[in-house]
Amino acid sequence: MPIITLTTDFGYKDPYAGAVKGAIYSQFPDARIVDISHDVTPFSVDEAAFMIYTSYSQFPKGTVHVIGVDAEHTPESPHIAALLDDHYFVCADNGVLSFILQKFRPTKAVVINIHDRIYSNFTVLDAFVQVACHIKRGGTLEVIGEPITELKSLPGILPILSNDSTSIRGKVIFIDNYGNAITNISRDIFESYGKGRNFILQARDQKFNRIYNRYSEIVKYDENGKSNKPDGKGLALFNNSGYLELATYKSNPLTVGSASSLFGLEINAPVTIQFES
Amino acid sequence: MPIITLTTDFGYKDPYAGAVKGAIYSQFPDARIVDISHDVTPFSVDEAAFMIYTSYSQFPKGTVHVIGVDAEHTPESPHIAALLDDHYFVCADNGVLSFILQKFRPTKAVVINIHDRIYSNFTVLDAFVQVACHIKRGGTLEVIGEPITELKSLPGILPILSNDSTSIRGKVIFIDNYGNAITNISRDIFESYGKGRNFILQARDQKFNRIYNRYSEIVKYDENGKSNKPDGKGLALFNNSGYLELATYKSNPLTVGSASSLFGLEINAPVTIQFES
Amino acid sequence: MPIITLTTDFGYKDPYAGAVKGAIYSQFPDARIVDISHDVTPFSVDEAAFMIYTSYSQFPKGTVHVIGVDAEHTPESPHIAALLDDHYFVCADNGVLSFILQKFRPTKAVVINIHDRIYSNFTVLDAFVQVACHIKRGGTLEVIGEPITELKSLPGILPILSNDSTSIRGKVIFIDNYGNAITNISRDIFESYGKGRNFILQARDQKFNRIYNRYSEIVKYDENGKSNKPDGKGLALFNNSGYLELATYKSNPLTVGSASSLFGLEINAPVTIQFES
Repeated sequence: MPIITLTTDFGYKDPYAGAVKGAIYSQFPDARIVDISHDVTPFSVDEAAFMIYTSYSQFPKGTVHVIGVDAEHTPESPHIAALLDDHYFVCADNGVLSFILQKFRPTKAVVINIHDRIYSNFTVLDAFVQVACHIKRGGTLEVIGEPITELKSLPGILPILSNDSTSIRGKVIFIDNYGNAITNISRDIFESYGKGRNFILQARDQKFNRIYNRYSEIVKYDENGKSNKPDGKGLALFNNSGYLELATYKSNPLTVGSASSLFGLEINAPVTIQFES
Repeated sequence: MPIITLTTDFGYKDPYAGAVKGAIYSQFPDARIVDISHDVTPFSVDEAAFMIYTSYSQFPKGTVHVIGVDAEHTPESPHIAALLDDHYFVCADNGVLSFILQKFRPTKAVVINIHDRIYSNFTVLDAFVQVACHIKRGGTLEVIGEPITELKSLPGILPILSNDSTSIRGKVIFIDNYGNAITNISRDIFESYGKGRNFILQARDQKFNRIYNRYSEIVKYDENGKSNKPDGKGLALFNNSGYLELATYKSNPLTVGSASSLFGLEINAPVTIQFES
Repeated sequence: MPIITLTTDFGYKDPYAGAVKGAIYSQFPDARIVDISHDVTPFSVDEAAFMIYTSYSQFPKGTVHVIGVDAEHTPESPHIAALLDDHYFVCADNGVLSFILQKFRPTKAVVINIHDRIYSNFTVLDAFVQVACHIKRGGTLEVIGEPITELKSLPGILPILSNDSTSIRGKVIFIDNYGNAITNISRDIFESYGKGRNFILQARDQKFNRIYNRYSEIVKYDENGKSNKPDGKGLALFNNSGYLELATYKSNPLTVGSASSLFGLEINAPVTIQFES
């Protein structure tokens, strides 16, 4: 499947995402181009890292994911192409693959060195488009760059586990469209570290001692099957990406408010879990 | 034509709409996926009902429309797949098909019962994706659920016709990108009920006694063909969907204002038509 | 390549862009539809003119570009189909091709006269969809309209060059997603008029005497290769479209501010370049 995905901070108003698609079709007419998002907060590598992590694996193996966030080609930020978990990623080596690198080592990775051969009058993504089309035409990574073994990870992206086995200190890493606050604490870390102990989860002044698996688990049904809907009530749950999320039931940031607005949970807000000793 | 449309409240920033597309391509590589909107107001079934109604019939017969708004699978909100007007709809039975149900009875409809067979680690839309791909591969509805005959309609979605044949009481159901306020009063209802009588249409403190068919009908041209442009002037018209709309000529919500901002016409604002007796 | 691009002011929330795609697929199933933008400021022909100019040439020759901005069919604004630079454009004759017309004369252009034959119950774009599909099926322009030789250009779209060869007076024509302010002064005009002379560029109270070619050129690297990042510092550069842009390094309109917000550079703000005499 000739799928190329795009994740950028170009925004939806600007014509640049459309232009990139034109450039891809000009080079590789059979491409299927899918937008993951063009509304990454400008230059936010953290946010892009979370977005690509939570979506890439839904695509077929062999998909090429182009990530155009903080991607200007500089000495500190070389361009790379990497194969991880049978997916290709074309991006700057700026930490945007951090979450994926926690689970997978690169099968192959190269520093792209074809920039001199590209006549670019368009965007920082010209090299990425050429590389993505090269891969989708069956080309190898070796042709377009020099192998590397280590890719950059973002500092502070992992939660901190206390040495005395009593607490996990994480933070909010993404606010979704419903205003729910998603943290960097995964179910895997919670379960392997917590080992089923009771706990108190604290996020600003909100405390929880239970983590749900679905939003609707906090809805109670009476004997007639009618629900008692707790709209706007806060809850903690592991979301479908496997990450701890602070949410409100049927939130709307524009009207009734959301976890983010009601509980003051902005990006980087601390979230701690204190286990019973 | 293997078209699958998506209407959700995921927003365009979040990576989830992209991920759903990845899941569809993984199961059905030949799909053509078209976004109707991902910016439905969170959990607003009313708004989604209007959006799908005004757009579905532009697509070829046989298109599958996936609607992911207020779609978590609960006892009160079973998942359904339905064939109406030769189009397939996959959604929660939460009233989102109300406008279409005013014109068409379901040819077929089933309550989806394959949830137990789905290993889901992703979104509330996993079941919808599986069902949509099943249909597009030529599968029947019977395989994926139990037939039902009645689908839920939203209360209050139809305007109220007075028994003495003198008035129609409707409401604003959608504010479009130009700030125009679209009501639930259709041209069909207006014409069959009004029978050509004179009338006064009232929306907040705005009164109209004429309903136009095109925005530009309020532009006057002088003998030289030059126009006298009434920018910002209010008008009532039947829009292309056949619904009564309160508009301003060449409005812009961000600058000169719009029908919604200038006349105070928010969602659910009452709109009445009083006919001559 | 059967590509049809869309540039409109429908917005992304409204279902109309999706509906237009449905209409295209209904008539021409093999279409590849690419969004350039649906977030043109409502009725802003200037903005749409810049957007289509900076993106169309990335697409393969023969692409059809449909532009639905200020496109209601009126005596003052006839609908046209035109071939310029081997690309087709279907739009109102309202000046939206102004930037392209500075570089190319139409190879062919017609005033569309098929409106009487169209039964439209949908959008102002119905005629455009029919024309675009007609062209993509190999139809000629002559079949759908009467030839014209002159297309409308927007007044004031070009910068003013002083007769004494000392100054260029331009203006801001687009604010991008990073808050950078793009002007109507092209590198071509700057170079042919300035002939390498020293200059002072003034935009509000900001002055510059150098124009960069890349954002990162203002980053200084020390002897260890570490950068001294001037986040938020203003710079002038010729962007990838070849137009003068006032930018800040790694701007974010929502947080640290941007060229537009920090320097007061809104649409139409004057930008002058005074050359040494």
